[in-house]
Amino acid sequence: MSVRDDADLDLTDRSIYRSWVVHTIRYNDLDPLGHVNNAVYSTFLEAGRTAFLQPLFKEHGDSHLDVVLARVILDYRRELTYPGKVDIGTSVKRIGNTSVVFVNGVFEEGTETCSATGEAYLVFFDLQTRKSTPPPPRIREALQTLLIG
Amino acid sequence: MSVRDDADLDLTDRSIYRSWVVHTIRYNDLDPLGHVNNAVYSTFLEAGRTAFLQPLFKEHGDSHLDVVLARVILDYRRELTYPGKVDIGTSVKRIGNTSVVFVNGVFEEGTETCSATGEAYLVFFDLQTRKSTPPPPRIREALQTLLIG
Amino acid sequence: MSVRDDADLDLTDRSIYRSWVVHTIRYNDLDPLGHVNNAVYSTFLEAGRTAFLQPLFKEHGDSHLDVVLARVILDYRRELTYPGKVDIGTSVKRIGNTSVVFVNGVFEEGTETCSATGEAYLVFFDLQTRKSTPPPPRIREALQTLLIG
Amino acid sequence: MSVRDDADLDLTDRSIYRSWVVHTIRYNDLDPLGHVNNAVYSTFLEAGRTAFLQPLFKEHGDSHLDVVLARVILDYRRELTYPGKVDIGTSVKRIGNTSVVFVNGVFEEGTETCSATGEAYLVFFDLQTRKSTPPPPRIREALQTLLIG
Repeated sequence: MSVRDDADLDLTDRSIYRSWVVHTIRYNDLDPLGHVNNAVYSTFLEAGRTAFLQPLFKEHGDSHLDVVLARVILDYRRELTYPGKVDIGTSVKRIGNTSVVFVNGVFEEGTETCSATGEAYLVFFDLQTRKSTPPPPRIREALQTLLIG
Repeated sequence: MSVRDDADLDLTDRSIYRSWVVHTIRYNDLDPLGHVNNAVYSTFLEAGRTAFLQPLFKEHGDSHLDVVLARVILDYRRELTYPGKVDIGTSVKRIGNTSVVFVNGVFEEGTETCSATGEAYLVFFDLQTRKSTPPPPRIREALQTLLIG
Repeated sequence: MSVRDDADLDLTDRSIYRSWVVHTIRYNDLDPLGHVNNAVYSTFLEAGRTAFLQPLFKEHGDSHLDVVLARVILDYRRELTYPGKVDIGTSVKRIGNTSVVFVNGVFEEGTETCSATGEAYLVFFDLQTRKSTPPPPRIREALQTLLIG
Repeated sequence: MSVRDDADLDLTDRSIYRSWVVHTIRYNDLDPLGHVNNAVYSTFLEAGRTAFLQPLFKEHGDSHLDVVLARVILDYRRELTYPGKVDIGTSVKRIGNTSVVFVNGVFEEGTETCSATGEAYLVFFDLQTRKSTPPPPRIREALQTLLIG
C-alpha cells in the first residue's frame, strides 16, 4: 500500500491536485444563511471523483465491478455565495488493496481561495460475489496517475 | 377520453384528492428568502404521483412500459417554512388514450391551508418501440379510481 | 400591457432568448432513470431569471420591493444526462402592471437541441404594504430589453 | 472540556442517541444506482442537530450569536432506497470552550438497521467581533443534556 504522511499534506494547496472540474453554484444551493449549504460540498467532491472514475469504468466495461463510498470527511473553510463557480481539484492520497482514498479541494473559480477540502474513502466491490475486490490493473494504473507525492 | 371542465375544479380543495402522502420539509429546502424553494414543490408533486404509480408498475412487471413526464404546471399560493410537514394530495383529472393528467395539492400538515397546487401530464411509453402506447387495462383501471368527478 | 400572441411563439427556438447563463449538470441531478430529474429544471429556470433580476434588485436597493413567483409551466422535451452543461436562455413574454412573465429555454450546451422550455409568472410585491405593486421605472425598462417581439 | 474515549463509542447503537427526528426519503434523493445519494445524508445530519439547536437559538434571541459548521465525517454503512423514512438520532460527544461535536445515527424507520453514522464539529461564533465565542450558559446546559456517557 502506498501511504503518505498526512502531516505533510496541505489540502488547501491548489498545486497538489491533478484533475480538475468546474461547477456552477445554483441559487437554491443557498440556505437561509445566504451561503452554499454544507450538503452541496458532498456533491462537489462527487463531481471531482466521478469525472475521473466514470470514463475509467465505462472503458473497463465490467458490469460486475462497482465502487462503493465508505467514508467522507469534509472541512468547511470559507463560505461560498451566489452567483459563482468553483474549481474542484481531485487527487489520490492512498491506494490500498481493494480501496482508494481521494482528496479534494473546492476553490473559488480561478483563485487560490479554498472554500473546503475533503477526503472520500471508496471500496472496489464485486457485484457478483458481493465482496470487496482489487481493482483491475488498468484502473489501478489510472488511479496512480492521480497519486500525490 | 374522460374530460372534466377545469372551471369546476378547485385544486385548493382538500376533498378532491384521493391519495395522500406526508413528506418532511428539510432545512436546505429553504432558500435565502427563508422559505421552501420553488423547485422542491416539483419533488412534492412527484412524491404524490410516484407513491401511486410505483407499486402499479412493480405489480405490472412489464419492463418495456415506461411513463414519461411531459408537462408540469405549478401554482404557488403560500410559502412554506421549516420545520414542518406537508400533506400531498393526488388525483387524476383526465385519462387519455396514451396519457394521464395528475393533479396535486400541497397542504400544511393536517390543515386546509394550501401551499401550492399542480398538474402533471404523463405519457405512457413503450421502451422497445420508442413510441407512446396505451397503458395496460390494470393500470388504466387503477388510474380511474383516482379520477375526479 | 404588452401582450404577444402565444401561437407565434416557439420557445424551442434559441434565437428568441435575449439573456443566457451556462449551468453544470451534477451527478445527483440524475434519478434512477439515469436522466436529470424534472425538479432540476425549475432550478435552471430560476438560474436564468435570477441572473437577470438579482443585479437589478441590488442596484435598485429598495428593501421593500420583492418579486414573488406565482406560477411555473415546464414542458419536458428531451432528457439530459451526465456529465454535461446546459445553456439557459431567458426572455420576457409579457410585462403587466404589477407582473412579468419570463420564458426560458434549456439547451444542450452549444447546440440547438432543446431539452425543456418554461414560463414563470412573477408578481412585484411591496413588503411593507404586503400588496402587489408596479415595479419601479428602472426595473420596468430593464425588463423591456428582454421583451420578445 | 468533557472528552470521551471514542474507542468506547459505537455510533451504530441506537441507544446512545438522546434526540430524534423522522425524515422522509424522496424519489429524487435516489441517484442512478437506485439508492439515496451520499449528499442527502449531510442533510439528514443537519436535520438532527438543527431540530435541537434552532429552538435554543430562537429562545436565546441573541442575534450576534451564530454557530458555524467546521467539519463533517460521514460513514456510509448500508444503502437506503425509496420509498421509506429514516429515524435520525442526535447526541453530543464533546463540548469544548467554543465548540461542540454532535454525533448522529441514521436508521431505517423503527429498526436497529443503521444506514450511516456521522459527526459534525461546530464552532460558536460572535457575528459582531467575527471571532469564536463560548456559548451562553443556557445553550451549554441544553447541550449537556445530549452529552453521551
